[in-house]
Amino acid sequence: MAGAFGFKGCQKIRGPQIRKLLEAKDFILFDCDGVIWHGETAITGAAKVVSSLIRHGKNVVFVTNNCTRPRENYVHKFYRLGFTDVMLEQIFSSSYCSALYLRDVVKVRGQVFVMGCDGMRRELEEAGISCVEEADEPGATIYDCALAPDVKAVLVGHDDKLTFLKLAKASCYLRDPDCLFLATDNDPWHPLSGGRILPGSGSLTAALEVSSGRKATVIGKPSRFMFECISSQFRGVDPAQCLMIGDRLEVDMLFGSNCGFDTMLTLTGVSQLEEAQEYKDSELTDKHRLVPDYVVDSIADFLSAFEEQEDQEEQSN
Amino acid sequence: MAGAFGFKGCQKIRGPQIRKLLEAKDFILFDCDGVIWHGETAITGAAKVVSSLIRHGKNVVFVTNNCTRPRENYVHKFYRLGFTDVMLEQIFSSSYCSALYLRDVVKVRGQVFVMGCDGMRRELEEAGISCVEEADEPGATIYDCALAPDVKAVLVGHDDKLTFLKLAKASCYLRDPDCLFLATDNDPWHPLSGGRILPGSGSLTAALEVSSGRKATVIGKPSRFMFECISSQFRGVDPAQCLMIGDRLEVDMLFGSNCGFDTMLTLTGVSQLEEAQEYKDSELTDKHRLVPDYVVDSIADFLSAFEEQEDQEEQSN
Repeated sequence: MAGAFGFKGCQKIRGPQIRKLLEAKDFILFDCDGVIWHGETAITGAAKVVSSLIRHGKNVVFVTNNCTRPRENYVHKFYRLGFTDVMLEQIFSSSYCSALYLRDVVKVRGQVFVMGCDGMRRELEEAGISCVEEADEPGATIYDCALAPDVKAVLVGHDDKLTFLKLAKASCYLRDPDCLFLATDNDPWHPLSGGRILPGSGSLTAALEVSSGRKATVIGKPSRFMFECISSQFRGVDPAQCLMIGDRLEVDMLFGSNCGFDTMLTLTGVSQLEEAQEYKDSELTDKHRLVPDYVVDSIADFLSAFEEQEDQEEQSN
Repeated sequence: MAGAFGFKGCQKIRGPQIRKLLEAKDFILFDCDGVIWHGETAITGAAKVVSSLIRHGKNVVFVTNNCTRPRENYVHKFYRLGFTDVMLEQIFSSSYCSALYLRDVVKVRGQVFVMGCDGMRRELEEAGISCVEEADEPGATIYDCALAPDVKAVLVGHDDKLTFLKLAKASCYLRDPDCLFLATDNDPWHPLSGGRILPGSGSLTAALEVSSGRKATVIGKPSRFMFECISSQFRGVDPAQCLMIGDRLEVDMLFGSNCGFDTMLTLTGVSQLEEAQEYKDSELTDKHRLVPDYVVDSIADFLSAFEEQEDQEEQSN
């Protein structure tokens, strides 16, 4: 599919080319942060794009490594930011998929220790998975704190309440080779305003990988597992019919490549066109998998494609 | 030197062989944790071994990646555990060497942000280096906290008061390419009693390397820098005259190899003889640098060597 319209990847497409591409795809997969919103601000035009795609009969799903909210919360956020027709079933977050993995794939028995945020714990509990109680005695240290006896998995994700004690406890649990080691995602950092950054789950996972001497199984993009979650819900999804739209080459484009999708980079987030070009020009063929098939400045560029299409539809009526 | 007594490395030596080895060396470098003590308990016989070496005119130095104490504190600890003739000048800790690096090698101007413990800050301040004030407003987050304007280095080490905010602030300071990124050491974890473990500086360094997208300069073993500190204090140290004694193959034996020393593994700490043997048998020649030249069960094995020597000395009088 890639390049079917005369592009070899990493080139910008506009109105009519976008329209042709969307006509050829049944499933549109969106990353969220940097693609359809920045924090609490929707990308201009994004809500209209999503509505139009749904109205044109496309399957639209949201595939996010952001593990901080349970899906229920995402529905509220979508609604609050003007995406009024997004439903729970369209949302695949790394927390939700971690819960599915623990419940349905490895069928975990015993408790899960979460080195992560409340949203992760709530998503696991929603799936009937028991999490180790967080609270420690005041002043507890790794020398004297209580450790739960039946921890069968450690799940790492974003954790703005990380402490040394949490990291140490997780390291101790992972001494047991029967205790699974999972990470919601491997995102290294996230941009904040004013040039600040937020360490991502990948940063905390690296700490725990070193202290435990083990490697985590990563649930989120670029791992294929999130697509397995999608395709077990929407039976018969054909990768050739899928378009993955994201803002991070190392995460979203690689996820698309790993799943056999066409990929589109939108320039409203982390990765820039120059980086994509560097990967394209790289002599390491592995890097070519990070190159998007298509690039747009913003998904708002879809609007002109729809307008054109609607004009044509009107004319033909 | 290695194998001069018919051993090709990784073999245990006893009384007379130890005596010959010690006769051939002027500088004896000891790691501390797992070699001369475990926490607050001296390895049986270790104090007597150190005294005897000093009495026999050997230069004895302690080379530790443990960054939690200023050297002054180490002197007190040595004394408390019965090592009554160890002086400040014999102690080379990764905190002390980090201070030397910042002051004398890179001549840092501006403040240092310490993602580590109070002992590190005290050692830096002792060397006249200014550290960023720790305290944050209660409830501060990386979205709204103050960031110091003149941070020219981030130093990571053991930090049992690690918080997410500290990690996030360090990540933000490292966005400035002129801000140096140093780690006291890269030890992944440390053993505690009851099978528990303590994440090491290497674990926190890995977190910060991922969130900053940069690599730290490591001061401690196995980097050669600590030997540079030693040889600038004891002028004219000949590596061929040095014996490095430690309990971790990946840290102490590699440090010895990197510096051109003979190396000795003592089995009172982390690494076991089987692991040394595996490295010796490895087809990866890089791994051979982790193989000790000599192995003892404990440095207390030196005592019989001294006794024999003293017997001989007595007989010849």
